[in-house]
Amino acid sequence: MNGDGEMTGTESIDDYGFSYGALGITNTNSVGVVRDAIGAWNVKHFFKSPYDFSFGLPVAAETWDGYLNDINGMHVTQQDVFDALDAAKSGTVEEGNVGGGTGMVLFKFKGGNGTSSRVIHIDNNTYTVGVFVQANFGNRDELMMKGVPVGKEINDLMPSISDDTKDGSIIIIIATDAPLLPSQLKLVVRHAALALGRVGSIAHNGSGDIFLAFSTQTPTQNSSVSIQTWNSISKEFLDPVYKATVDATEEAIINALVAAKTMKGINGNTVYALPHNRLIEILKKYNRFNESK
Amino acid sequence: MNGDGEMTGTESIDDYGFSYGALGITNTNSVGVVRDAIGAWNVKHFFKSPYDFSFGLPVAAETWDGYLNDINGMHVTQQDVFDALDAAKSGTVEEGNVGGGTGMVLFKFKGGNGTSSRVIHIDNNTYTVGVFVQANFGNRDELMMKGVPVGKEINDLMPSISDDTKDGSIIIIIATDAPLLPSQLKLVVRHAALALGRVGSIAHNGSGDIFLAFSTQTPTQNSSVSIQTWNSISKEFLDPVYKATVDATEEAIINALVAAKTMKGINGNTVYALPHNRLIEILKKYNRFNESK
Amino acid sequence: MNGDGEMTGTESIDDYGFSYGALGITNTNSVGVVRDAIGAWNVKHFFKSPYDFSFGLPVAAETWDGYLNDINGMHVTQQDVFDALDAAKSGTVEEGNVGGGTGMVLFKFKGGNGTSSRVIHIDNNTYTVGVFVQANFGNRDELMMKGVPVGKEINDLMPSISDDTKDGSIIIIIATDAPLLPSQLKLVVRHAALALGRVGSIAHNGSGDIFLAFSTQTPTQNSSVSIQTWNSISKEFLDPVYKATVDATEEAIINALVAAKTMKGINGNTVYALPHNRLIEILKKYNRFNESK
Amino acid sequence: MNGDGEMTGTESIDDYGFSYGALGITNTNSVGVVRDAIGAWNVKHFFKSPYDFSFGLPVAAETWDGYLNDINGMHVTQQDVFDALDAAKSGTVEEGNVGGGTGMVLFKFKGGNGTSSRVIHIDNNTYTVGVFVQANFGNRDELMMKGVPVGKEINDLMPSISDDTKDGSIIIIIATDAPLLPSQLKLVVRHAALALGRVGSIAHNGSGDIFLAFSTQTPTQNSSVSIQTWNSISKEFLDPVYKATVDATEEAIINALVAAKTMKGINGNTVYALPHNRLIEILKKYNRFNESK
Repeated sequence: MNGDGEMTGTESIDDYGFSYGALGITNTNSVGVVRDAIGAWNVKHFFKSPYDFSFGLPVAAETWDGYLNDINGMHVTQQDVFDALDAAKSGTVEEGNVGGGTGMVLFKFKGGNGTSSRVIHIDNNTYTVGVFVQANFGNRDELMMKGVPVGKEINDLMPSISDDTKDGSIIIIIATDAPLLPSQLKLVVRHAALALGRVGSIAHNGSGDIFLAFSTQTPTQNSSVSIQTWNSISKEFLDPVYKATVDATEEAIINALVAAKTMKGINGNTVYALPHNRLIEILKKYNRFNESK
Repeated sequence: MNGDGEMTGTESIDDYGFSYGALGITNTNSVGVVRDAIGAWNVKHFFKSPYDFSFGLPVAAETWDGYLNDINGMHVTQQDVFDALDAAKSGTVEEGNVGGGTGMVLFKFKGGNGTSSRVIHIDNNTYTVGVFVQANFGNRDELMMKGVPVGKEINDLMPSISDDTKDGSIIIIIATDAPLLPSQLKLVVRHAALALGRVGSIAHNGSGDIFLAFSTQTPTQNSSVSIQTWNSISKEFLDPVYKATVDATEEAIINALVAAKTMKGINGNTVYALPHNRLIEILKKYNRFNESK
Repeated sequence: MNGDGEMTGTESIDDYGFSYGALGITNTNSVGVVRDAIGAWNVKHFFKSPYDFSFGLPVAAETWDGYLNDINGMHVTQQDVFDALDAAKSGTVEEGNVGGGTGMVLFKFKGGNGTSSRVIHIDNNTYTVGVFVQANFGNRDELMMKGVPVGKEINDLMPSISDDTKDGSIIIIIATDAPLLPSQLKLVVRHAALALGRVGSIAHNGSGDIFLAFSTQTPTQNSSVSIQTWNSISKEFLDPVYKATVDATEEAIINALVAAKTMKGINGNTVYALPHNRLIEILKKYNRFNESK
Repeated sequence: MNGDGEMTGTESIDDYGFSYGALGITNTNSVGVVRDAIGAWNVKHFFKSPYDFSFGLPVAAETWDGYLNDINGMHVTQQDVFDALDAAKSGTVEEGNVGGGTGMVLFKFKGGNGTSSRVIHIDNNTYTVGVFVQANFGNRDELMMKGVPVGKEINDLMPSISDDTKDGSIIIIIATDAPLLPSQLKLVVRHAALALGRVGSIAHNGSGDIFLAFSTQTPTQNSSVSIQTWNSISKEFLDPVYKATVDATEEAIINALVAAKTMKGINGNTVYALPHNRLIEILKKYNRFNESK
């Protein structure tokens, strides 16, 4: 919605629809070191010829964690990035106060990382749409969960922060194995805004809304060396992708909120976790507990 | 979200941030006649010099009403547009099955036109944000009202339409007397998507989402004939505008739904109004009736 | 460069990368009638099922010809469009004072339609890049042909127009049989601006620069009904396409200028053709005559 | 034209039309360190309150200098950036092999930094449009100077580089004291492409074209604390700004070429300066020497 966000490498993604190497997510003041380090790591691991001079245009994105982190201390180093990349593995993604999500604030509760996915069926094919968020935005009274005004119901447990006026951002990464063209991924990514609406966001000034969608499809080489062949789900079959994007993004945000733990950070600033027992009572009050999705 | 929509004159609005003359809203197949007629009317009323050759780039937008209207009959004429422009007056805006909204279908209930506004206070100033929608989209089970799953609760009263597969669009027009620069209006207009999220839209394929925000501010002439002076609310004061945009857009969509009446149209196709009594029962079931906003 | 132009149907092209049916080019005040008529013609010829309700989002573009044409007379009719579509055939494209190009003014000489193409070789494949322009812009002293300041050399033969202050626009249509994805065509189309630079344009206020690139590639149907397969020239092989686009666009503009004939239009306004004999003398003066391309 | 470029901070500039602090220009692999260092320097110099937690979204742009520089050595440090910012002063801008421009290659001659400006008069006001380029692109035979095919005339003095296939980019920064709104600066910046056309660029694959225009206008504070007042040159007076942008950008690129010196870099790669005496002979051959601008 608003431009207070940074993701490097986007000019290339916008124009070509692809990128390579890791995508880094960090705090606002460390975008540069993470970006350069991803590039240096790419050179070491991917470029073997002496003429692979460059490391290209790495992708690094940020949210602002200065309420809890000593952000101006610039503690993230190149070695931290190398360590993270060397340790990267597939499997369950940790949620809550983890990695770049450690210092997030979400609807004035403790926020962080969240993830969710949906398996969809189109024609006889099965695909997955997965969403990862680093969520750091919103005023308390805006928070809605399944449409229930949870934020209005819990007006205590506000952060103890000396000057709490700056709103943060959200990073939303949508990944799918569905074969989609770059131009189609631009349609998919816009749907993430609908999920923000569902949880009650009004996209305050000061927020930066950084959305990226990618497909894991690799084009195949045609018999002609200059030609690649891409598969693409036809436009009229895309609704399941759109619905999965909205649903999984909504759930990933809620998961970030539910998984995060109370944290005391810099200057004694403290941000409290959403209390699970009270959430259950509120869902019951509005007759939405134990509801099938 | 998706590109199945048409609004003429947008290149000029995007680049200059302003337009003049009336904005026409009609059905898909009549965009051209409405656009040309607005121009011809402008020539007659605004251009007096023989050298005002051209009528500029009029703005006309559309949604598709072919389930209820004989859209290929192309019944809208230049004279209809002249009559509408001559009869235009300020005051209450009719809602429901009116004008371009006559043939709309909204979450498979009867849709149409809706409007809503919010009065906001910024610093010592008072502004209004008004929203008009022509709403024509959505599957039944997606409909949410104040977060309540109304669409899942009312799974009967489905349209009797022989081939009901095409999704429609929404036109959202946001008008304000708050002084905003063209670049700021681009931020405002994006917030409309959050309201779509609130009412449950997943922005199906086939929908065209046509959003336009304008300020009634007229720049003042500086002492230098080449220079205009614009007022602009500073970025950090814009949250009330964003919140009013989301809230009024959500309410305008709901108003379109509540105001519309059951209609039988072309080929006997019938679309039913949302039953008000059942809506009240559902809001009670979820403990959301008589809730202050 | 600037937004004083209109092309309908662009939202759909931007988002989906394709369109269907004819593309109409006309004057500013007739965009609507041409747009609606293309749609009606499509209904008659392409839609046979009773459920093909709609004619979609036809594409019509405009330049302003009010210096020579009675533009406010609105003389273009639906039948004119039907006649043009019925008479459409492949083969040589007429240049100069033809069709929508009849009333064009180009660097204050008579302008009009122009076309040019290049055959390119990529890997073992041969493709054609063809360009069509309707050219209607520029001040005299800006005109350059092959870099030669032709406009500065011919400062007579200025139009006799009573009030000659409005600049016009250019429509540039780039067509190719090279297999390119929608996202790649967006790169191609931007290169047309380089050709405008070559001929001396500074893209005055009041101009609308309407560029469209399309590929005639039709995706093939995969064994799965929901999946289409597209070929795409790999990014690193695209330079011949870019070069052909710039060269053919430059030549098409020059061809429009060279092919156009002196015309007397509305109100006695007269615009003169570029004098061929003087052009040859100027090219000789600058040692650029008989130069191989 | 193409997306092979990086400038950080652009999301914020696109959406708000302003930025603050220094703008850094460096090589591809040092964008991150320069970006973070500008931020850290801003914290030290501009932010005095303990609640100015963040350094915002600094702007850093790059071109690729790997043919002459040990780019993967990552030799640019935070201290280099601090030193550059501390030493910044107004006055003449050095051209040629300087700063980020040290390792540039331009039409296969030695390139680098270039600058040019125009004084314009609009109504009774005088403004300056200044352009800075870091120019690093193009094949030899494309080079045109004042329309003269200089590149075709000098087909020797080619770089001695072992693998010379990657094209580079151009950064174009346009600064003016003319009062322009953010939305107007977006129009101005597009005109830079016309200058690229004039010098013969076809915008090869692999190039990144990074254009930024800014006005030094600072809005004034209205009596109401929430309202700023901006001046803006009316649309119909903007032609001198457009013309100055195109002319100064063309000249800045040529100045970069003329000012640069032959350089031997990494791996013995050598890139030769444009020979001034031969340039003069060529201009004479085409009757373009001693021509008033």
